[in-house]
Amino acid sequence: MTRSVTILGSTGSVGRSTVALLEAACEGDFQVEALVANRDAAGLATQARRLGARLAVVADPGYFGALRDALAGSGIEAAAGPEAVMAAAARPVDWTMAAIVGAAGLPATLAALGRGGVVALANKESLVCAGDIVLATARAAGATLLPVDSEHNAIFQALEARGGGADPFATVEKIVLTASGGPCRTMTVAEMAAMTPEAAVKHPVWSMGAKISIDSATMMNKGLELIEAVRLFPVPEPRVEVLVHPQSTVHGLVQYADGSVMAQLGSPDMRTPIAHALAWPARMAAAVPRLDLVALGRLEFFAPDPVRFPALRLAREALRAGGGATTILNAANETAVGMFLDRRLGFLDIAAVVEEALSRLGAPEAADLDAILSLDGAARMEAARIAAERAAA
Amino acid sequence: MTRSVTILGSTGSVGRSTVALLEAACEGDFQVEALVANRDAAGLATQARRLGARLAVVADPGYFGALRDALAGSGIEAAAGPEAVMAAAARPVDWTMAAIVGAAGLPATLAALGRGGVVALANKESLVCAGDIVLATARAAGATLLPVDSEHNAIFQALEARGGGADPFATVEKIVLTASGGPCRTMTVAEMAAMTPEAAVKHPVWSMGAKISIDSATMMNKGLELIEAVRLFPVPEPRVEVLVHPQSTVHGLVQYADGSVMAQLGSPDMRTPIAHALAWPARMAAAVPRLDLVALGRLEFFAPDPVRFPALRLAREALRAGGGATTILNAANETAVGMFLDRRLGFLDIAAVVEEALSRLGAPEAADLDAILSLDGAARMEAARIAAERAAA
Repeated sequence: MTRSVTILGSTGSVGRSTVALLEAACEGDFQVEALVANRDAAGLATQARRLGARLAVVADPGYFGALRDALAGSGIEAAAGPEAVMAAAARPVDWTMAAIVGAAGLPATLAALGRGGVVALANKESLVCAGDIVLATARAAGATLLPVDSEHNAIFQALEARGGGADPFATVEKIVLTASGGPCRTMTVAEMAAMTPEAAVKHPVWSMGAKISIDSATMMNKGLELIEAVRLFPVPEPRVEVLVHPQSTVHGLVQYADGSVMAQLGSPDMRTPIAHALAWPARMAAAVPRLDLVALGRLEFFAPDPVRFPALRLAREALRAGGGATTILNAANETAVGMFLDRRLGFLDIAAVVEEALSRLGAPEAADLDAILSLDGAARMEAARIAAERAAA
Repeated sequence: MTRSVTILGSTGSVGRSTVALLEAACEGDFQVEALVANRDAAGLATQARRLGARLAVVADPGYFGALRDALAGSGIEAAAGPEAVMAAAARPVDWTMAAIVGAAGLPATLAALGRGGVVALANKESLVCAGDIVLATARAAGATLLPVDSEHNAIFQALEARGGGADPFATVEKIVLTASGGPCRTMTVAEMAAMTPEAAVKHPVWSMGAKISIDSATMMNKGLELIEAVRLFPVPEPRVEVLVHPQSTVHGLVQYADGSVMAQLGSPDMRTPIAHALAWPARMAAAVPRLDLVALGRLEFFAPDPVRFPALRLAREALRAGGGATTILNAANETAVGMFLDRRLGFLDIAAVVEEALSRLGAPEAADLDAILSLDGAARMEAARIAAERAAA
């Protein structure tokens, strides 16, 4: 049975991994409908030709000519601009990878969810900023949301062993997200205060972009994932825990009422969770390095330090506050991280700015996409103001 | 929905844990049909009264009077003798715990399997000595075999996340049984040669009987479990691995074609796998200590040493030889362990006696229960002869 597939964000890191899995898949297993990128017309055209896609779209209209020329003679339709992205996301397919980074990916993700089918979600911001809308859209259209983040995908897999019964989640006692602990794991507060952008970007396990590397260093990344987990899985916030695990080999765990703890382990390679989402509810092959526990030798586990890493507490507080508080958390964090990368804010000030923004803005209701985008903007302005006050003080 | 339950071996360690779970279960979830023990009439009667069983059976007819007296006025039927055990095992129920230890448990296990329903198997010997017959009996009656050994139960749980598809086992790359490594894990060969029964019985993690403790020290326990795994799960012998893991926290792992490794973890407490089998395909609560990875701190993994622990190789060779070779392996090992416990054989001689017995007896066909029991007897005699020769040399 051939599954039709669309990739939103196909030239980014998750998109490229998805394309590689589709290229290696068995002939006839997948048919690519649409590939969507931002500006990389040449890369997009190459992917579209290789996969025999029907449609290729660049979000930036300035790259339409380049895309059209690169696809000349291929028979592949070319399009450009935000409306074309939305139209591509809304085309009927069995499976969509939603991997456009940041708030920019939200409208296309909602369009894909609104169309139904399976949507693999690599865009963290959707669930953090607009969780209620994302979930309501998926529910209304009968769409299935599959997490591609390695931690959430691990928990999704560990939940597959939950068994049946009247309420199969009633015996889920807790969900555990693992965290590498980032580059500051063993640092003193003084060392953290002196942290530079260059040092903070060096992640011990995963190779990532600057923003997410800083989020890993502050552990705000895990705070955002905690919010995602509470929205993805029917388990309340107090039953979602975070465990520091420097080897990043156990990606997530689920504890059941019989004392069983199911865990998903693997090499840190995004192709595994993407392949899981792509083949679900079956499995497919992925040419990733296999886990070698003997070579690893040991796996370590620590409780996260709430003093040096207040981000987890802030994420829990935002969840409890409800309304648009998690939108504010995410926006204030993005602003503060940007200012840290520009050397306009100290490392320890990032969490302080987020905390102050949450305290000043509260938890206003944000029931639709416009309200969320407006609150997002307000939180960014407030965070910049707080950061400037701290610099002046 | 009430499930009817029979326990074969209800006053042994696994039987007592099963009874404890049934006592703690919700009113109306289970109805106990029959409880079977060997000689502990008083213990059996207490269990039968508490659980409201319909029938209690002692295998040893000499204890019938004691059982009848202990059940006086309860309305619970009392019976004794091997035929009564078989009749109890054959009574129609939804779920049977087959936990009568050793070859003695084989006929009752087969009777339960022949009746259909779910059979939780705690009797290793059934699958090692008479794997083909056990599996053929289960198939013919449409019985479901659930493993209760912590390792096999872990693998069963990890296989629950295998997903669907035409052949859901096609994407299972390997199965990994973990082993504590036993009390000899870090010993030299000279230290192992000087091993006494008292020292060998001290297991680092699980509290067990003498025979199984010696099997843990030689790692023959893991060899027997390897044979069980190959018979329980549709994965060939070369794809079943053994991993030494001194903390005995990860009980088993399954590696899939997408690079995902699913594992079941838990405190070393038999109530977890028993509860899993009892509630399957749902889950139930078990009052076992919850796993605390932070308190444990680290999990370690090593490759087993084939020089100091030849038992794993012998198990693989017996599996490849086919026929009754695994029956010979098991019988020769039981004899050699008994002689070691009686100080008539050295510790390192246990595996040597098994290897020589396998070499002398080959792999004769043993297609029915009589042939298996006869081969079992012959292997015990041969092993005793080999041991005597070694003592005389």
